[in-house]
Amino acid sequence: MNTPTFRNWQSVQSEVLRRIHAREWKPGDFIPNETDLALEFGCARTTVNRALRALADSGLLDRRRKAGTRVAAQPVAKAILDIAVIRSEIEERGQNYSYRLMARQTTVPPVTVSAAMHTNADDPLLSIRALHMSDDAPYALEDRWINTSVVPAAKDETFQDVSANEWLLKHAPYTHGEIVFSATAASEEDSAIMDCPEHSALFTIDRLTWDQGAAVTKARILFGPGHQLRTAL
Amino acid sequence: MNTPTFRNWQSVQSEVLRRIHAREWKPGDFIPNETDLALEFGCARTTVNRALRALADSGLLDRRRKAGTRVAAQPVAKAILDIAVIRSEIEERGQNYSYRLMARQTTVPPVTVSAAMHTNADDPLLSIRALHMSDDAPYALEDRWINTSVVPAAKDETFQDVSANEWLLKHAPYTHGEIVFSATAASEEDSAIMDCPEHSALFTIDRLTWDQGAAVTKARILFGPGHQLRTAL
Repeated sequence: MNTPTFRNWQSVQSEVLRRIHAREWKPGDFIPNETDLALEFGCARTTVNRALRALADSGLLDRRRKAGTRVAAQPVAKAILDIAVIRSEIEERGQNYSYRLMARQTTVPPVTVSAAMHTNADDPLLSIRALHMSDDAPYALEDRWINTSVVPAAKDETFQDVSANEWLLKHAPYTHGEIVFSATAASEEDSAIMDCPEHSALFTIDRLTWDQGAAVTKARILFGPGHQLRTAL
Repeated sequence: MNTPTFRNWQSVQSEVLRRIHAREWKPGDFIPNETDLALEFGCARTTVNRALRALADSGLLDRRRKAGTRVAAQPVAKAILDIAVIRSEIEERGQNYSYRLMARQTTVPPVTVSAAMHTNADDPLLSIRALHMSDDAPYALEDRWINTSVVPAAKDETFQDVSANEWLLKHAPYTHGEIVFSATAASEEDSAIMDCPEHSALFTIDRLTWDQGAAVTKARILFGPGHQLRTAL
């Protein structure tokens, strides 16, 4: 047998993934049972079990107690995206990061914001607008609402020297959140700030984070025309 | 001690994640050593080790052999996106999927395509343009190049009844790939097909897959205005 010995569940998982991607095991096919795979891979049955469970969790395998395990008929590709602080994203490209605070005020937000953040419609929130620059060119425009009843320290921070994007990372705990990717046409004001034609298509990230039941912050980040978020499959 | 007993590495990982997100352990802080954590969690030291390794792999912890383990100073948030077949994406929303082939031809691609796919500049590739519809409204416009020297069966497929998006999943093995998210302004032709104003901002997915060293297919998918890709953080 030419198959090398597999020492851990991750290496078993890699080999199973390879067979699925290579269509040696096709969508809908039954795969060999765990005992046979353990024999083939020269490892414990529990190691095979651990690998197959992980692949079932990620939607690539369908496991039925009696019927056996099949390759999912409609496998879902998982793309894992790294969402870094904007400063790091720019510096990792070897470019020079700078930052400009454009507005900072405590004000009652639009109802779409208070509704999304589950705050009272007349509660003021801290609003921040800031421009992130790469080699002095506009890179990303950040519009953010901070719930100062959850993050009181933000009241004393000017955000002149450090962006909310970075400051919150260190000072605002969160338990869970949501991230949404979309495309937005640049408004007249956005295009003036971002130095791009009006109606340019801007890649957009909306992020809302929660600490237990309370919204911490809601941010919309518009990236300049041509921005790409890329990852391996 | 109030900490419950942790039975497996995943539950240890969840608890460590919770402490990082809750800033009980702040960016840059050293965390307790594995022996102390194992005692606190009531589990084996190897279980703690497994959990911490996974968190270090995902960039949340910095592990140094002698110095100990710290919370990463600039933790990177990971967003895991499910990229489903377009048919499934629509059907999962309880909407009706339909599909229209708009063009299918074998032709020499633009040099940007042959360069990206590492094919000879004068090798013809199979070009497919198709519209995916949700409840009879335009949902996504697929422009695709297929390398028929890698997927010869595609030559005999009309793609009248099944989209290339779905057909390739069953018939074209791949070993790895790349996915890029961006925003595109709708061209005159795109906007006519997608039934939206010209220059609308369209969320865009570019995908290129490889089987070992040979490109299998390169696809660009434009989604209608307002399309969102969302995931939990």
